[in-house]
Amino acid sequence: MKKIIRSTNDLLLAVLMGGLSIFLLLSKKIITGVENGLAAAIGLGKRTNNILQGAFFALTKVIPMDLAIEDMKKNNYNSYFKKAGQKIVDMNNQAVDLGVQASVKVEIPAAWADATDEPVAEPKNMTPFVRDIVMPLDKQQGDKLPVSVFQKYGVLDGTWENGTSVYSKRGVATKVPKWNPDACIQCNRCSMCCPHAAIRPVLLTDEEKAGVPDSFVTAPAKGLGKDAPKYNFRMQLSPYDCLGCGVCLTACPAKDALTWAPFEEMKSEQPLFDDVAMNESYLKKDVISDKSVKNVQFAKPYFQFSAACAGCAETTYIKLLSQLFGDRMYVGNAAGCSSAISGGAPILPYCRDCKGHGPAWEHSLFEDNAEFAFGFYHAQDAIRKELLIRIEALKNAGVAAEEAAAYLADWNDREKSREVSDALIAALEKAEQTDEVKYILDNREFLAKKSVWAVGGDGWAYDIGFGGIDHVMAQNQDVNLLVLDTEVYSNTGGQSSKATPTSATAKFAASGKKVAKKDLGAILMQYGYVYVAQVAMGADQAQTLKALREAESYDGPSIVICYCPCLEQHIKAGMGTSQDEMKKAVECGYWHLYRYDPRRIAEGKNPFQLDSKEPDTDKVMDFLMGENRFASLKNNFPDKADALYAKEVEDVKARYERYKKLAED
Amino acid sequence: MKKIIRSTNDLLLAVLMGGLSIFLLLSKKIITGVENGLAAAIGLGKRTNNILQGAFFALTKVIPMDLAIEDMKKNNYNSYFKKAGQKIVDMNNQAVDLGVQASVKVEIPAAWADATDEPVAEPKNMTPFVRDIVMPLDKQQGDKLPVSVFQKYGVLDGTWENGTSVYSKRGVATKVPKWNPDACIQCNRCSMCCPHAAIRPVLLTDEEKAGVPDSFVTAPAKGLGKDAPKYNFRMQLSPYDCLGCGVCLTACPAKDALTWAPFEEMKSEQPLFDDVAMNESYLKKDVISDKSVKNVQFAKPYFQFSAACAGCAETTYIKLLSQLFGDRMYVGNAAGCSSAISGGAPILPYCRDCKGHGPAWEHSLFEDNAEFAFGFYHAQDAIRKELLIRIEALKNAGVAAEEAAAYLADWNDREKSREVSDALIAALEKAEQTDEVKYILDNREFLAKKSVWAVGGDGWAYDIGFGGIDHVMAQNQDVNLLVLDTEVYSNTGGQSSKATPTSATAKFAASGKKVAKKDLGAILMQYGYVYVAQVAMGADQAQTLKALREAESYDGPSIVICYCPCLEQHIKAGMGTSQDEMKKAVECGYWHLYRYDPRRIAEGKNPFQLDSKEPDTDKVMDFLMGENRFASLKNNFPDKADALYAKEVEDVKARYERYKKLAED
Repeated sequence: MKKIIRSTNDLLLAVLMGGLSIFLLLSKKIITGVENGLAAAIGLGKRTNNILQGAFFALTKVIPMDLAIEDMKKNNYNSYFKKAGQKIVDMNNQAVDLGVQASVKVEIPAAWADATDEPVAEPKNMTPFVRDIVMPLDKQQGDKLPVSVFQKYGVLDGTWENGTSVYSKRGVATKVPKWNPDACIQCNRCSMCCPHAAIRPVLLTDEEKAGVPDSFVTAPAKGLGKDAPKYNFRMQLSPYDCLGCGVCLTACPAKDALTWAPFEEMKSEQPLFDDVAMNESYLKKDVISDKSVKNVQFAKPYFQFSAACAGCAETTYIKLLSQLFGDRMYVGNAAGCSSAISGGAPILPYCRDCKGHGPAWEHSLFEDNAEFAFGFYHAQDAIRKELLIRIEALKNAGVAAEEAAAYLADWNDREKSREVSDALIAALEKAEQTDEVKYILDNREFLAKKSVWAVGGDGWAYDIGFGGIDHVMAQNQDVNLLVLDTEVYSNTGGQSSKATPTSATAKFAASGKKVAKKDLGAILMQYGYVYVAQVAMGADQAQTLKALREAESYDGPSIVICYCPCLEQHIKAGMGTSQDEMKKAVECGYWHLYRYDPRRIAEGKNPFQLDSKEPDTDKVMDFLMGENRFASLKNNFPDKADALYAKEVEDVKARYERYKKLAED
Repeated sequence: MKKIIRSTNDLLLAVLMGGLSIFLLLSKKIITGVENGLAAAIGLGKRTNNILQGAFFALTKVIPMDLAIEDMKKNNYNSYFKKAGQKIVDMNNQAVDLGVQASVKVEIPAAWADATDEPVAEPKNMTPFVRDIVMPLDKQQGDKLPVSVFQKYGVLDGTWENGTSVYSKRGVATKVPKWNPDACIQCNRCSMCCPHAAIRPVLLTDEEKAGVPDSFVTAPAKGLGKDAPKYNFRMQLSPYDCLGCGVCLTACPAKDALTWAPFEEMKSEQPLFDDVAMNESYLKKDVISDKSVKNVQFAKPYFQFSAACAGCAETTYIKLLSQLFGDRMYVGNAAGCSSAISGGAPILPYCRDCKGHGPAWEHSLFEDNAEFAFGFYHAQDAIRKELLIRIEALKNAGVAAEEAAAYLADWNDREKSREVSDALIAALEKAEQTDEVKYILDNREFLAKKSVWAVGGDGWAYDIGFGGIDHVMAQNQDVNLLVLDTEVYSNTGGQSSKATPTSATAKFAASGKKVAKKDLGAILMQYGYVYVAQVAMGADQAQTLKALREAESYDGPSIVICYCPCLEQHIKAGMGTSQDEMKKAVECGYWHLYRYDPRRIAEGKNPFQLDSKEPDTDKVMDFLMGENRFASLKNNFPDKADALYAKEVEDVKARYERYKKLAED
């Protein structure tokens, strides 16, 4: 039992659940394997709830079986008919029957009667803050912590140590991807689209390889350019951080480079991930680059192991952003999934590197997040400009004159500001500690150029926070916006937003949205000086990378609108296909990839570039029918559905025509 | 004295002003005439402050004259140099000298020593509410009113009797326009652009003419179509409501049809205005039409005699709106000049007709006015739909069946709904008073179709309320927005808004606005289903009329953006040229006239129509230099001004190119 119940919390929870406990706890690994297989066999994928429920009533006999089965099936009708139709109801009824019939008797060893909990192994490398605050909170013992402990760590104001997600090894997947060094073409697309940063490419020199365990099997690195040193390549999974969503498998262009393997078989690889793949000393600066998907994936993600849903698309964009700008990022995050994922204390996925650099993150409200990030921008700008004056004075006084001059030359250069800042700090640390020198050292964190981002969902960007977005973009300052567009209020439970397209069902649009999706990008293009891009990672990873890079490098306001398949869209094929779903969306013209770059105007070029190909709009209906947010309309409002679908197809076509015209101008 | 001091309030105010009182009070009519002439002679137009100040110090000798003159001139420099340059400082210094030298001794009749106030003549036709509440408030005696009087009139909730501006005859103009029946071409353009509805065309039959005073001189009506009855035409001024701004003179295309005349000469015409021009029984239904400027001006304005500045452009649009839709309008008015003008209790310019029909007006906040008006829309829509159900039931029960059927057929028809509503009401009043019948009669005010408008300035529409505007427009419901764009926060004292163009100076943009004016219309066109128009009455009265008519008739969201010259723009030629200034703005391409009508898409036409001609952008700089909001930049920031002017000229050209392309598509 000690292997199954991992803490007394689990046991307590089990007791509270009354009756169900032992059965379900036993089943945690054993039965999920069984019923996963059963559910998949009848087409329900991982949806095992009715099988387990059927088995529960069959085993416990708490109510007469006839009544139990009738009630379960009635419940299936109520739950699924409107959303998904009779076929799904039938499948779930079949699941009930399977559960009733298919329970497996598990012999409980007699010794378990006296089982005691082994002490839980503490995570390695805990900081005192993690040990004293994060761990108790994670064990739901937060209410026992005295205020003094928060005072001791100076976090009464809500500041929090970042990177704590590294201590939360959940191991919830029953099957995880297994890498095949021979089949892999080393494109790193799997790493790019992993929502949890749980699969990462590693490059080791021969010497480094000699120092890691033999089980760290590698292949000779390829495609790094003919001048690249000889490196050994491995794609390393973190079995305990993997959620088994499978998006990496769907994104993999090579046959059998990634295949499913049972968690139990793969979990032994965890130390390879923790000790080798996470080891910053192995990062290859000569290879890391923002110019290609392959090269950028060798960079450290400053966003990892979040509590996002399996298959989440939002986190793939945030993670990529963190790989590009993580060591100098400020993030204001609007209420919504992205803030719940990013700031769900005590487990924070934003982390820092061994130098202590990393994103500064803060949550703000739906209604003022762009303004909030704008405040970040102005605050650091004011401090940096004050520093400039003081560094100029130091230079003139001959203190660290060379380093000060270098800083003054490149203080705002994206590539060089970190380097000249570090050199200045080093020189000032050796100088006489005058008040001026101390002032600069006290503010050293502001020396390097910052990358300010406002992040949030469509509820923020299209609706509640749009007034602020418009206002901030209009100011023509260097603030960047990342919009994670799930086309619905996801975190609050699926309410319609202005990003919801015609005929999609959602709360407040139960009979299908009547008006077209708002074209946020087109609206902001009207300013002429706002960089605007629309991306969908699953459709074109390289275009996503290019858009984020361009947005950040533009010395003005930028917005990147990211298509994000989401649980709330009820994709029939499941969230494991979230990246594929983006591809389908772009292929049929439901979503478009474009970049509007104001810098091109001065070059006499059209600022608007349509990156996605001519869509096949004949496939729009297929796309819509692949998602229950659309398909359910037919079940609930059969008389209205066709007209709304037709309008949506028209909306899709009209949008493409507008973009095409823009691209041609 | 009784003729000059019109109330003890004036006297009290005078005493509070200390010393200055008698002099200034005496000067009210006598000296304003004198110094108006002096100011005009040195190029200061009506700006008499320094002449009066110079005269005051010369007469009172409260401080040594040398010191007084030095201080006044120093003050001129501080007040005018940055805004307007040395030339204006010199002119004001000259005004000081003139004032010092030019005071005229007025012999005060000995009898004035015992002067007493004659009882002030009470306005005619006061309602009890006006007598008991409005008049005491207007005399600044509001703090003496007991709560019970508000309770008596049922206005504890803030409701107010409308049309009270008719009782506030101010008579503040020293000269007013005089009409010449022989020269007038009867185009009614003067009436169209009068900010105060103080000049109105009247048509009388011969019989009616026989019943009015002989001084009501008319000309034979012309241009009403060959089938029109023989009418007698007169353009009638309200001398006491006229502010003497002179926009009517600048808008008049006929030579000498309107000329300046002293107020004292013209004031005797007031009864002709009050008793004839305001007499609704003389309104000619057969002539009134929304199809032409001429014809629409025969309609009753439901917005009149507001406290707006002389030459205000905002009120011209509101007045026209009220002539078109006033008997069925709901107005939500954002904070700003338009709300201060429209809802400055106790004097309310929105009024009702003899049937009791008129606009329902309410003020809301900057940040939610569009939503507020949207609430009006939904509220009346819900009530009307409930009424439909009940009227259907009555029809089926055979109660007022014919009228009910007629109502059900045309309940939402703009032209007919009032008529079928009135017929239904008349029939129901005769029917048995069942609960159902009573319910409908209790809600009779909702029977006729409503016209819902959100009104406000650019601070509301471009800035603080934009999020709400976007949200309401996106809903695709029949709500109309009127934006009175002064390109600056006018009522709060001249702060920069997103409507402020490049290089304009304003609070928060003291060194010139750095970014281009936001293109609100282009942004909202991105929805595809929003009617959008830009108008400037002074440039094209017919286009303004057409846009308002189209906006209202569109069964969806509409926005009309109206160019509004304003005191805060510091037009060098003064506010009397506000209509001319619009013409200049359009001619040089600073402002464009267009209409985007979604209905045209279904007809296979381009929804965008550019109504203004190809502009002469060579004139942009002349236009800018005619307004001190732009011209002052040169004085304050001579090194930066040219670059910002050049950018503004570029912005202007780029905007025209965009519109041209849109029109060509």
